Amino acid sequence: MKEFQLIESFFTGRAQSRKDVVVGIGDDCAIVQPADNKSIAISCDTLVENVHFFPDMPAADLGYKSLAVNLSDLASMGAEPAWMTLALTLPEVDETWLAEFSSGLFDIAEYYGVALIGGDTTRGPRSITITINGQLPNNIGLTRSGAKNGDWIYVTGTLGDSALGLDLLRNKAEANAEDRAYLIQRHYRPTPRVLAGQSLRNIASSAIDISDGIMSDIQHVLKASNVGAVINVDNIPLSEPLKASVSPEMALSYALTGGEDYELLFTVNEAQKGMLEVALAESGVKFTQIGQVCTGGQLKLLSDNKPFEPINLGFEHFN
Amino acid sequence: MKEFQLIESFFTGRAQSRKDVVVGIGDDCAIVQPADNKSIAISCDTLVENVHFFPDMPAADLGYKSLAVNLSDLASMGAEPAWMTLALTLPEVDETWLAEFSSGLFDIAEYYGVALIGGDTTRGPRSITITINGQLPNNIGLTRSGAKNGDWIYVTGTLGDSALGLDLLRNKAEANAEDRAYLIQRHYRPTPRVLAGQSLRNIASSAIDISDGIMSDIQHVLKASNVGAVINVDNIPLSEPLKASVSPEMALSYALTGGEDYELLFTVNEAQKGMLEVALAESGVKFTQIGQVCTGGQLKLLSDNKPFEPINLGFEHFN
Repeated sequence: MKEFQLIESFFTGRAQSRKDVVVGIGDDCAIVQPADNKSIAISCDTLVENVHFFPDMPAADLGYKSLAVNLSDLASMGAEPAWMTLALTLPEVDETWLAEFSSGLFDIAEYYGVALIGGDTTRGPRSITITINGQLPNNIGLTRSGAKNGDWIYVTGTLGDSALGLDLLRNKAEANAEDRAYLIQRHYRPTPRVLAGQSLRNIASSAIDISDGIMSDIQHVLKASNVGAVINVDNIPLSEPLKASVSPEMALSYALTGGEDYELLFTVNEAQKGMLEVALAESGVKFTQIGQVCTGGQLKLLSDNKPFEPINLGFEHFN
Repeated sequence: MKEFQLIESFFTGRAQSRKDVVVGIGDDCAIVQPADNKSIAISCDTLVENVHFFPDMPAADLGYKSLAVNLSDLASMGAEPAWMTLALTLPEVDETWLAEFSSGLFDIAEYYGVALIGGDTTRGPRSITITINGQLPNNIGLTRSGAKNGDWIYVTGTLGDSALGLDLLRNKAEANAEDRAYLIQRHYRPTPRVLAGQSLRNIASSAIDISDGIMSDIQHVLKASNVGAVINVDNIPLSEPLKASVSPEMALSYALTGGEDYELLFTVNEAQKGMLEVALAESGVKFTQIGQVCTGGQLKLLSDNKPFEPINLGFEHFN
């Protein structure tokens, strides 16, 4: 089966159409027409078999997650999803796998209005690289570098579910059937906070998505903004399935050091707190104040006003 | 070594700066500001070790070629290079390899004014995916679908050099030292016809870059344009090193069916031929008329006005 036909047969049929796609899949390049007075946000993420996912991960979930992690990057900048390219490397042409993978990919692409505009399909060890493009009003993007002393620190959703879901899959933890299904779903199909990110455009002073665990990711904000932070771990939002499945201490460790939550961490100036309530209520996303930005460059964790040290479950790609 | 630091240390230092890059490497997304009244051309290509390149390919050449093949896609649409993301998967952190790879990549990036705006570095079997963005005046892109009955068919440069260069590397062919160096250079460092492509914007009726061999790639134009073609193989442009190294019959086979030339194939209406001479003379690129578009959907090869059948040396990624 030829490369071109492979792409065509599984990926052109359901590709979302958008009026701003002038030339879609099937030429040397796609051509898109950005809206007037918009900037383009661009990000790319690679998922490699046996590094970012196990060979037995359901293909539909893998397709879904491959785009979800990229949408999470757009969310953290406050951008509106638009177009993507897909570079898919596969050891062989497995039509069942391709049908399921593309189904999961298009499920989330259609939900967020993302058009697949091109890509490359190659033979090799299985990996997926998606490059996502979003649009933003000029000069409005949320970055990691705007946090100021005194700003309040928030997170969306709950933390730690995905890391426990992974440990359930690896048989390193146990949970009842209902909690297990919820936690694995959180690992396989994370919810990118796309609308919340857009709602935060004129409100947050900085934002990042939590992919490697909040204790690791907040360091990028502190470094880029040249500030420190105090986090009250008693306020870290935890889901009922997480709390029901592990000890309180382990739950906090999953939440603080476990990866792949794809929730947003963001900072808000005191004067913007009123607007925040309104904006995020409209987007329907739960959010929780967990700490405050301070001077000094250090991250301090407190529980019951005393220093707190979690068990580190963090991960790193090159380790 | 952490993923983020790895990217930072080898790729941020020499990254081309552009005024239209609002946020560069180091945040969740890059943010770029397209020029007014421009469309964006987007393409991505993956190179996988042992599929698209051998493990002993010099890293600097690999860095160069990874971007060159993407620039060739922009060239075939007539787009002006602007920004790229790099997804780099590596089995280990080899600082020498990274220094050489990034050096080759930035050599060509700087020449064409391409800013590296982001990427992802992951552990796994070695592969490189670059997604390239270029700009085009609105509604001007060259596509595969505009060829009309009677249009003249042209190619830039010479064909077949890269495929013979590959066979020299594989010890499947022989050449004298000077020709060998030239032909291997054509394989390792193909010249994307970026300026030629831009010159053709208002002149060519269709264009494509020749990556899988002209006999294979022209089929995409014929299918997309719903036309046929007659090619006079006696007019196929061949380099002196190619002609000096193999028989006339093999030279034509390399030129017609060998891959990775990254020259442009394009069609021009009779009325535009005068403009073509002026435009391509300005870009300094050699071009040769090799045939004519006809009706009927078939590709016919003629030599001395008789049907011609080359030895097929073509390749396919999934075979």
